[in-house]
Amino acid sequence: MGQDESIKKKVEDLAHQSLDLLYDYLRLPSVSAQHLKIPETVAYVKKIVNEYGGETRVLDDLGGHPVIYAFFSAGKNGDASKTLLFYNHYDVQPPDPLDEWESDPFEPRLENGILYARGTADNKGSLMQRLVAIKYLRENGGLPCNVKFLIEGEEESGSRHLEPYLQKYKDLFRADACIWEFGSKDDQERVQLYAGVKGSSYFELSVKTADIDIHSSLAACIDNPAWRLVQALATMKSQQNTILVDDFFDEIQEPDEETKEAVRALPLDKASLSKLYGLKRPLITDVRGEDPMEALMFHPTMTICGMISGYTGEGTKTVLPKEAKVKLDCRTVPGQTGEHLYKCIKRHLERYGFSDVKVELIDAQKAYRSDIKHPFVQLVKKTAAEAYQSEVLLYPNSEGTGPMYIFNQYLGLPIVSTGVGWAQSKAHAPNESIRIQDYIDGVLHMVYLLQAFPEIK
Amino acid sequence: MGQDESIKKKVEDLAHQSLDLLYDYLRLPSVSAQHLKIPETVAYVKKIVNEYGGETRVLDDLGGHPVIYAFFSAGKNGDASKTLLFYNHYDVQPPDPLDEWESDPFEPRLENGILYARGTADNKGSLMQRLVAIKYLRENGGLPCNVKFLIEGEEESGSRHLEPYLQKYKDLFRADACIWEFGSKDDQERVQLYAGVKGSSYFELSVKTADIDIHSSLAACIDNPAWRLVQALATMKSQQNTILVDDFFDEIQEPDEETKEAVRALPLDKASLSKLYGLKRPLITDVRGEDPMEALMFHPTMTICGMISGYTGEGTKTVLPKEAKVKLDCRTVPGQTGEHLYKCIKRHLERYGFSDVKVELIDAQKAYRSDIKHPFVQLVKKTAAEAYQSEVLLYPNSEGTGPMYIFNQYLGLPIVSTGVGWAQSKAHAPNESIRIQDYIDGVLHMVYLLQAFPEIK
Repeated sequence: MGQDESIKKKVEDLAHQSLDLLYDYLRLPSVSAQHLKIPETVAYVKKIVNEYGGETRVLDDLGGHPVIYAFFSAGKNGDASKTLLFYNHYDVQPPDPLDEWESDPFEPRLENGILYARGTADNKGSLMQRLVAIKYLRENGGLPCNVKFLIEGEEESGSRHLEPYLQKYKDLFRADACIWEFGSKDDQERVQLYAGVKGSSYFELSVKTADIDIHSSLAACIDNPAWRLVQALATMKSQQNTILVDDFFDEIQEPDEETKEAVRALPLDKASLSKLYGLKRPLITDVRGEDPMEALMFHPTMTICGMISGYTGEGTKTVLPKEAKVKLDCRTVPGQTGEHLYKCIKRHLERYGFSDVKVELIDAQKAYRSDIKHPFVQLVKKTAAEAYQSEVLLYPNSEGTGPMYIFNQYLGLPIVSTGVGWAQSKAHAPNESIRIQDYIDGVLHMVYLLQAFPEIK
Repeated sequence: MGQDESIKKKVEDLAHQSLDLLYDYLRLPSVSAQHLKIPETVAYVKKIVNEYGGETRVLDDLGGHPVIYAFFSAGKNGDASKTLLFYNHYDVQPPDPLDEWESDPFEPRLENGILYARGTADNKGSLMQRLVAIKYLRENGGLPCNVKFLIEGEEESGSRHLEPYLQKYKDLFRADACIWEFGSKDDQERVQLYAGVKGSSYFELSVKTADIDIHSSLAACIDNPAWRLVQALATMKSQQNTILVDDFFDEIQEPDEETKEAVRALPLDKASLSKLYGLKRPLITDVRGEDPMEALMFHPTMTICGMISGYTGEGTKTVLPKEAKVKLDCRTVPGQTGEHLYKCIKRHLERYGFSDVKVELIDAQKAYRSDIKHPFVQLVKKTAAEAYQSEVLLYPNSEGTGPMYIFNQYLGLPIVSTGVGWAQSKAHAPNESIRIQDYIDGVLHMVYLLQAFPEIK
């Protein structure tokens, strides 16, 4: 057995031995939206970190679910001047709709090498996997550097309390680089890494024209909030899906040439996208003659996530509603801020005669992109290729959102996201799962990464 | 005591004696939308008609809730060649929202001369009132003419099965004129009569872009059904509330000069309308420089009664919805048909590039107006003034809708609507009520009307 084979064998054994701890972790229904079993889950995470030789500190002085700090010091042959930070979360999405699960979402089920339970992919498997890598290194020559964890409990609820913790405890979490929480293999078994995230500015627009619902026979003289909202919205985006809000694009920082180049190299299988969702219409980007991957990575969006007014049940009700509401999710790119977009939308509506449309900024997270040329980013990619023995795709950013921006703001470090998922992981959906082989390969990836990490300048 | 005073005294006594029967009628929760207690209510109506000396026939061979035919023959001094038809319904609106009722909606409560219960104003009080008038006449010289009733059980659900009954049983219901089911005194104690109704064509428009909801991060390349619907709707009505659908107004039959004149004479208290509903915006008609009463009577509308897409709960959900729907109620005027409007809307959407918007005509009732110069219409007005000793307002049509058109189509008779309501009756809303004095006055109105009816040429 060569050195590589020996490492792989030991990693595999440790990974299998860790499954009992992972199962108990998965059995805790730590749904942040419902504040379920939060203290129990925090205690459990402390317990496993301690068992794996780390120290912990539970931070709960700034509201929200506690943030767990974990620390593993470099071994005596390691470089204690280097620190890698892992970001994870112990909370999970609600399991609804329950009736679509083939087994209890909070009772792990292993079948054909696939482990099913809420939180396997997002994000409990990933924490356990990282701890196994640390255990291996501690038992085989010692940790090559310090390792820290920030394990929060509100990621699935927008990480609303995270920023004050990062601000206050920035020295505690200080590190040289950060491995983010998510990532998966795609349907071609390629490993997907993300060097950034898009932002999201979430708005609610509402129009109220009366105190009570009115009989629709009076609509010949009384104004209709749903028509007002429709007319207002129609001025904000063209029929060709161009955002028409003035100054909306002002703050955008153009990606550099390397980043654009990297995106051009990324694959996107339009046919399988269309099939996966049962799309009835051509892709917007096809209609507009744009590259869909470029749009996903670099174009801000303005999505109607929800819209409601009046009677929405079966059949007819002849009502003139008193109000109408719409929820708008703007996926943003580096540079854009929720505050600016809020001002743009408000000013736009006033300019078009819709000052009666109330605008509210409900939530805003900024986009973030690490420099993909950074040696850390390249190291994560290189070690992934070695560990998974697969093609690795480095996305300059995910099309999704997370609190990366504030990590960089307070800690000033490069960030890359990688995780334990596969193409059918169904994070946020029923029958969430991971494959045990991916779990093992991911441990190996973290071992390789930590071994090489102190070399980075 | 003069003759008039003597009549009034007897009518008052009979009206009071009838209340126990009315109470039991109100106790039956005959909600047509939920098919509640329909056989029991039909049996009860038969019972009271029979007790008051009429014969009944229950028609149930054409689907839907049974239609009750009732007949009272002219007394021996009466004119059996003349027949007056009353239209009533035994079904009621659902009592929701239940928690806003100050007492059980199906347990009548009499307080300060006001009788509260679901169905008092709409439409059980009105049936009982008419039966009391018949009882008085039968006990005091005999009925001056034949009286028929059509009492249906689906008025609150759009009278969907009524037309085939009218068609098949047109000879059974044959009459010279018809008194419709609703009417009330306004907040100035003026009696409101209606010689017609507006029509209603109710549409559902929907857009489906995918089989399942999608993560909103993909909105940069996948189309959004809510935006499609918003853009489609925005082409159908201007920001100034002008309906922009081509040929929408084509079928309209202009009202004659007398009808226009009558509408100009009708009062509309804009300030109290605004206060009643807590309106936040100026009246459409004020913005457009139109007469609001003329608009209510003569202008077709296109109202968004309901609109839904995606996530409509609290806070945020980052979803790209799979579909979007809107419910449109077009209040129509004489001449307009649902079929034509359906074609116009469909053609309009295709013309503007929205052939993916599905259009469905859910329900259509045509508008109807009796000739306000007809002697029957004038007689109803004259006898109302005598009975109520109040000002009487004759509306060429209500701004609301009912199946008048098909009554005239199959029976060919003038129709006027009058009822037992008052300004605070709250038909369709919690704490529905009538005033006992209005109930008594309405009996007297029907007595006067029936007495004079045979004189009409």
